[in-house]
Amino acid sequence: MTEEEILYFLQKNYPATRKEVISGIGDDCAVISRGSLWELLTTDTMVEGIHFDFSYFDPYFVGRKLAAVNLSDIAAMGGAPSYALFNLSLPEISEEELKGLLNGLTSKLEAYGADLIGGDVTRNPERWHLTLTLVGEAPAGVAIFRQGAKAGDLIFVSRPLGASAAALELWQKGLEPPEPIKLAHLDPEPEIELGKLLAQENLASAMMDISDGLLLDLARLCRANNLGAEIEAEKVPFSLVLKDLPLKQDPLFYALSGGEDFALLFTVPHDREKFLHLALKGRQVFKIGRFIAKEGLYLIKGGQKNNVSPQGFDHFAKRESFIST
Amino acid sequence: MTEEEILYFLQKNYPATRKEVISGIGDDCAVISRGSLWELLTTDTMVEGIHFDFSYFDPYFVGRKLAAVNLSDIAAMGGAPSYALFNLSLPEISEEELKGLLNGLTSKLEAYGADLIGGDVTRNPERWHLTLTLVGEAPAGVAIFRQGAKAGDLIFVSRPLGASAAALELWQKGLEPPEPIKLAHLDPEPEIELGKLLAQENLASAMMDISDGLLLDLARLCRANNLGAEIEAEKVPFSLVLKDLPLKQDPLFYALSGGEDFALLFTVPHDREKFLHLALKGRQVFKIGRFIAKEGLYLIKGGQKNNVSPQGFDHFAKRESFIST
Repeated sequence: MTEEEILYFLQKNYPATRKEVISGIGDDCAVISRGSLWELLTTDTMVEGIHFDFSYFDPYFVGRKLAAVNLSDIAAMGGAPSYALFNLSLPEISEEELKGLLNGLTSKLEAYGADLIGGDVTRNPERWHLTLTLVGEAPAGVAIFRQGAKAGDLIFVSRPLGASAAALELWQKGLEPPEPIKLAHLDPEPEIELGKLLAQENLASAMMDISDGLLLDLARLCRANNLGAEIEAEKVPFSLVLKDLPLKQDPLFYALSGGEDFALLFTVPHDREKFLHLALKGRQVFKIGRFIAKEGLYLIKGGQKNNVSPQGFDHFAKRESFIST
Repeated sequence: MTEEEILYFLQKNYPATRKEVISGIGDDCAVISRGSLWELLTTDTMVEGIHFDFSYFDPYFVGRKLAAVNLSDIAAMGGAPSYALFNLSLPEISEEELKGLLNGLTSKLEAYGADLIGGDVTRNPERWHLTLTLVGEAPAGVAIFRQGAKAGDLIFVSRPLGASAAALELWQKGLEPPEPIKLAHLDPEPEIELGKLLAQENLASAMMDISDGLLLDLARLCRANNLGAEIEAEKVPFSLVLKDLPLKQDPLFYALSGGEDFALLFTVPHDREKFLHLALKGRQVFKIGRFIAKEGLYLIKGGQKNNVSPQGFDHFAKRESFIST
């Protein structure tokens, strides 16, 4: 069973029964009705050697990144973060390393207004294992789900993609990436402000964050809406710096399939596009394609339209398919 | 740094800033004000080889116990559980094992009214690593904290202690414990109903659950109140079955220091004791001693009063002191 199969199994066999549950398993956050508020809940785990490595990370940035990946899930609903619980499991650690980790975690949380209010500390003999659970909120009714898009809705991403995966490849080759590329991987900025704006102004019909690569996450967004998508390769944004780096693949590859971008992927109904640009007040976002009624993911490149399969990449398989049936 | 030192470090250096935080790090749950409700948040991790072992556990009971230890933290505040998030990290697992785990987890949650609404699945190459985060609630103002007791308050535990630790010792010797002793370890019952009753009837001045052994947890309760405690050894309840088992120590040893009981430890002001017994309607609880102004933990046994140090036991040291300074 893959991660997605496990989640589907849970969703099918253990549906939420409480009437306050607006959305359970399957979106970026669970959503609970609390009177005039919607409460958002999300949790993400990072494991040493699986999600990060101390050859290119230090404890401070492990803390920052753990906060970022969770904050990004709150952003993906259009919410604001408020409280965090931290589960730390690890072998021996020095006081200096521990303080670096906690300073990284709390500085990133504080920057977005979230308080650390609890947690648990245990032993994991082989490797660092960190979980953050984040509570956020939105005014009741003002959140954006994965489901909600229609055929014809325009597909946007919030910023250039691919730098995070490019940094990782360089480190794995023993090279030091340039600063902005490095920080895209170590310290991604969650799009809290943009997410809130899109929700409050009712501009996006569906939204999620890009954690496993544009194509794979777009395939998930398609599935949530029973739709397909067409992407114009020339419009997929990537940092121009990627062109000058000694990478194995074309920059577009990293932008389409790199992963760990933590940008927002969202759809806008055709007639809301002008309001989007008005609301953004000059902030750039990138229109890369549109939803279509026909299922499947299509990449338009050099005038040719080809069906693409995001599952084809090895590192997704490695990441997701660790449960034997 | 021990677990407690880490928590103290966090409490001191990263105090909660939001005015809705009634209680942050340092109690069984964090407490947030949500209008007419108080929201309770707790999280606990279980690691294979540290907290459980497949020589005597199976996946179903791992799931049940993970739910129980978290439910017990909600009980310790006098709250009712409502929502859960589940983080699962593990190496290869068969579909049957996975279903056993999920059935165990969700059956225990459902029995107390909690919905599973989210989580994360990742890889941990060496061992199972499971975290549950539980959301609960209480009417605003109706929760019991660790802090709140006065000298003279009576100390109670909710049920006989020691069976869980006795079961573990038998397994470690290759013996099979009798059924009720076994279940005390594999499938402890969180005291949700009792906790709620004590909170709603305003009967307890301070409360926590016993996870690391009566003496160690009582020392924590003393510290939270700047008080000491006197315990009458003859009044500490343990299951009579323990007397007939081939254990290394006297039953009292397991009741005082065994750990993983998940009973409630609570204090009752002298003038509330009669109301306690009225409210309990015949349900038994066990008065074991009283809080005193003088700091320290005193055990009265055979007419002698001795100062006891709960930190003296090896397995606490092993459990808590894994962080080098």
